Amino acid sequence: TAPGYAPSLRSRLPLVAFLLETIFILLFVFFVKIEHNGNAFLSTEFQDIHVMIFMGFGFLATFLLRYGFSGSGFNVLLAAMAIQWAVLMNGFLLPQRHHKREIHISMKSMIEAELCAASALVAMGAVHGKTNPVQYKFIFKISHILISSIMLLHVFGALFGVMVSWVLYREGIEPVHEKEKTDRKTGLFAMFGTLFLWMFWPSFNSAMVRDHKWERGLKLTVIYGTYLSLAVSVVMAMSVSMLTSAKGKMNMVHLQSSTLSGGVAIGVAMTAVHTPWIAMTIGFCASLLSALGFCYMKNHMLFAFECHDTCSVLNVHAVPGILGWFALLFLRLASDESTIAVQFAVYHICVLLITACMSLVMGTATGPTTLIHIWRPQQDRKCFDDQAFWEFPNLVVQK
Amino acid sequence: TAPGYAPSLRSRLPLVAFLLETIFILLFVFFVKIEHNGNAFLSTEFQDIHVMIFMGFGFLATFLLRYGFSGSGFNVLLAAMAIQWAVLMNGFLLPQRHHKREIHISMKSMIEAELCAASALVAMGAVHGKTNPVQYKFIFKISHILISSIMLLHVFGALFGVMVSWVLYREGIEPVHEKEKTDRKTGLFAMFGTLFLWMFWPSFNSAMVRDHKWERGLKLTVIYGTYLSLAVSVVMAMSVSMLTSAKGKMNMVHLQSSTLSGGVAIGVAMTAVHTPWIAMTIGFCASLLSALGFCYMKNHMLFAFECHDTCSVLNVHAVPGILGWFALLFLRLASDESTIAVQFAVYHICVLLITACMSLVMGTATGPTTLIHIWRPQQDRKCFDDQAFWEFPNLVVQK
Amino acid sequence: TAPGYAPSLRSRLPLVAFLLETIFILLFVFFVKIEHNGNAFLSTEFQDIHVMIFMGFGFLATFLLRYGFSGSGFNVLLAAMAIQWAVLMNGFLLPQRHHKREIHISMKSMIEAELCAASALVAMGAVHGKTNPVQYKFIFKISHILISSIMLLHVFGALFGVMVSWVLYREGIEPVHEKEKTDRKTGLFAMFGTLFLWMFWPSFNSAMVRDHKWERGLKLTVIYGTYLSLAVSVVMAMSVSMLTSAKGKMNMVHLQSSTLSGGVAIGVAMTAVHTPWIAMTIGFCASLLSALGFCYMKNHMLFAFECHDTCSVLNVHAVPGILGWFALLFLRLASDESTIAVQFAVYHICVLLITACMSLVMGTATGPTTLIHIWRPQQDRKCFDDQAFWEFPNLVVQK
Repeated sequence: TAPGYAPSLRSRLPLVAFLLETIFILLFVFFVKIEHNGNAFLSTEFQDIHVMIFMGFGFLATFLLRYGFSGSGFNVLLAAMAIQWAVLMNGFLLPQRHHKREIHISMKSMIEAELCAASALVAMGAVHGKTNPVQYKFIFKISHILISSIMLLHVFGALFGVMVSWVLYREGIEPVHEKEKTDRKTGLFAMFGTLFLWMFWPSFNSAMVRDHKWERGLKLTVIYGTYLSLAVSVVMAMSVSMLTSAKGKMNMVHLQSSTLSGGVAIGVAMTAVHTPWIAMTIGFCASLLSALGFCYMKNHMLFAFECHDTCSVLNVHAVPGILGWFALLFLRLASDESTIAVQFAVYHICVLLITACMSLVMGTATGPTTLIHIWRPQQDRKCFDDQAFWEFPNLVVQK
Repeated sequence: TAPGYAPSLRSRLPLVAFLLETIFILLFVFFVKIEHNGNAFLSTEFQDIHVMIFMGFGFLATFLLRYGFSGSGFNVLLAAMAIQWAVLMNGFLLPQRHHKREIHISMKSMIEAELCAASALVAMGAVHGKTNPVQYKFIFKISHILISSIMLLHVFGALFGVMVSWVLYREGIEPVHEKEKTDRKTGLFAMFGTLFLWMFWPSFNSAMVRDHKWERGLKLTVIYGTYLSLAVSVVMAMSVSMLTSAKGKMNMVHLQSSTLSGGVAIGVAMTAVHTPWIAMTIGFCASLLSALGFCYMKNHMLFAFECHDTCSVLNVHAVPGILGWFALLFLRLASDESTIAVQFAVYHICVLLITACMSLVMGTATGPTTLIHIWRPQQDRKCFDDQAFWEFPNLVVQK
Repeated sequence: TAPGYAPSLRSRLPLVAFLLETIFILLFVFFVKIEHNGNAFLSTEFQDIHVMIFMGFGFLATFLLRYGFSGSGFNVLLAAMAIQWAVLMNGFLLPQRHHKREIHISMKSMIEAELCAASALVAMGAVHGKTNPVQYKFIFKISHILISSIMLLHVFGALFGVMVSWVLYREGIEPVHEKEKTDRKTGLFAMFGTLFLWMFWPSFNSAMVRDHKWERGLKLTVIYGTYLSLAVSVVMAMSVSMLTSAKGKMNMVHLQSSTLSGGVAIGVAMTAVHTPWIAMTIGFCASLLSALGFCYMKNHMLFAFECHDTCSVLNVHAVPGILGWFALLFLRLASDESTIAVQFAVYHICVLLITACMSLVMGTATGPTTLIHIWRPQQDRKCFDDQAFWEFPNLVVQK
């Protein structure tokens, strides 16, 4: 391949996609049935989460000036594969899903599949713009373990993605890549994706929450809590963004990331939050930490650890996720009886440690395998550039 | 009119609109009542389809660089008139809708009106950019026959539109019009419309499906089937688009069209699809055919048949629609008893033939009447150009 | 501060936001509880209105070429604060909401809070681009009285905003500010926000409507009425826009405003509208008045009264709102018995007069207080300009 062009994926991507789809369809032939006597009681939540995954994540990723087609296009491609893969994996790995060796599709299993896809998309955020779609697919297959809780989703996804990004760090990329830019219009497209995530986050958090007999209205409590936490997040994210800027101006990219941190934190802690003010306080702290992290930690990580985190998933998902984890631990310890509380604390700490270790190990292990030449990584100067992957036959040249 | 300007529609469009609205209101006075004891059980499906018609179709049509205002503006205008017209026509033409010479409005009749509007908008896709809104309105009034099934909607709409476009073929337009272009931003706007259609397609297909006693969960089966078929479609559309490109790059316009073909095909065949893998296979084949058709058939039609199909509705709606029709025929023949199967096959083939003939004849007949000078068609060089219809008083000139 | 830069808000906005959020959280600690035995029956309406407030109003305000970030960003900031404020104010001011000195959060109170936010955002529309976010917050706190009906929402919000804008009129701004422009792309973004408002307006109007025993199906009647009224509005807005243009071309900004007027008018009159044709006639008249007002009244107000109304809220909200008020009066008088009718008429006229007086007085009183130097208003030449408030570190310079 000439140095001017990115390596053609013509012989890679279609082959991989064709192969995977054939395997998926064959596996679906033998194992997957539709649950006929299911009811449609989760269908509005499903629709909301569907919009978040495909519209919200997709357009949030269009903030790069020259990477909008890839941002939204690859998001759809990966999420569509993720869902098929997650239906199969959730069925195979969780024994209680088997019904006489059959996987049954229901609204619940579809929502779980979308949450798995969300986790993979969070991981993708860290390497956004620096890998090609075949590498994406490979990373994503690995990252796609079972997501049984929202905490796991955010923390695992973010740490995994950051580790992969650390391994994939390219010497050739100067700290600030010339193509890693936004303009007025891409800022609005990204704002648009952010708002979709923001608006439907209450459904995202509450979808898997069931009302118990001994705890009525838990679902509604989660909805109101997420809603208020996100409202506080917005205000704090804008304030901190203005406060940390020398000229007293806000930064659209900070805003787009930190407004969502309240939803992440409350999503992890939600089962123990019963009053609105606790939800608002969690949202307050989460967006404060996230916005400060965005201002100071992102560049620090880049220079000190040589880890480039395109969408800053560490600040948007990992930090608020861990904050929410502490909030949950604290709230549970404050409310429960002593013996149960100790049991919960031990279990809870173990889950976080195992998640963190697994994500770090798997991320570090996945990185090198994506570097091998068979996946045809793009050159340094083709990073953050749509033209490596997309035809622009009718593009106005003089613009 | 000076050659530099498109003919002014000032004396045409307002008159036609004013007249039509007056007639509509008068007809509503005498014939239309609200069904007071209806319930709201279809309201979420209605809302989803409403979003698809006005947001999805509207923004899918903004992909042309200089035709974005017209794409979304005329879409809203036509769909808004289509719905009023369809409420009246469905009431007058279907005798079972009369209740003592009254047409009753219910969620069901509103959804049917939106589906009729969808059919008209599909037909519009073929002549998009080459006709003015008065012609649009005229074409649309003709095309607006009763849509009683989803198959009719796609196949009739697409064939009708293609025939009108064939009749309207302008010698003066060179095969590739200089203004028929996209850029990065309009590609994202169109992606945005595509995603809205894509995400809510399960509601579109399942809205008119009712659960029977003897076939429980049919509605849910349709939802899951459409969902999986669309997921496979996305993957295949991107792969084929990359495979058919010389440089191994994807084409955004292909992607935006072919991802939807799985939804079209499964929408026609859905009543006979009971397992996920059949739905996925139909989506697989539909997007394969549609993407290949987009690459090879669109230009072939332009040069060999002198038929210019702006939004490629033939490949997006007609081809997958007919594929779905074959799938339905095959699945029914395979499952039913012999006598019923033969009856079904005969009926089924007749429906397709009648639909195709009607659409071809009506399309060919509608074309010439739209050409007469009274409708003031725009000149060749004002095709695909917003400035024929929209004021840009504050437009930044130097851009 | 150098004359070239807008005054930095670094010491103002974060302080105000931090203070307000702390106060909000403290008040929530002592007064606000979640209503645990509430049910989720209004949750779809709530979600629709949520989308309208944050997505619809936000992107409708992006139509200015250089003010897109502020349009959507400040909208989210203000709406997020408005909701928290409205939950508290509605609870404190309405005695029937107190339950033993506690404010209970339910879907109903959340929807009311969103409607209050809508009223504030309507008022903001009049001063859009000419005030900074700290002034916005201040204006908004004042404007935020209790909204108990949709009529109040539109008429109060619009008149209040216009009065504030009249007081804030800057001599330095020439009648047509050089930065008050749109282009093709911002027109599409605004179209996008308009469509979200347009599509979900039926939910907006019907959310607070309850079915009575003596009037079955009132909610559905409102939904169908709003829907048809908006459909007629679209057609008439485009026609009038074309008719009033010298060259027979449509104006995107007229269209974006006047299409919504049908929803405003029917929203005020809806409880008395029982047949589709009345709804359509109201939509017809409202969009006619609104579009004519947009063409002639906006500039007249600017030159004769020195009142600059950026989003033309007078024509979009006040005029159709008052039209709807007359329709309601007329329909009630025509249907009710004489004694009740007179009582209703007196009450009805009083409500409008009180609303108008309060909005005018409060608007005039609010204006001067926002002008004091402590809020740091931007200079004339920084009006309608994002660069006063937003960092563009990575902005492509040569664009």
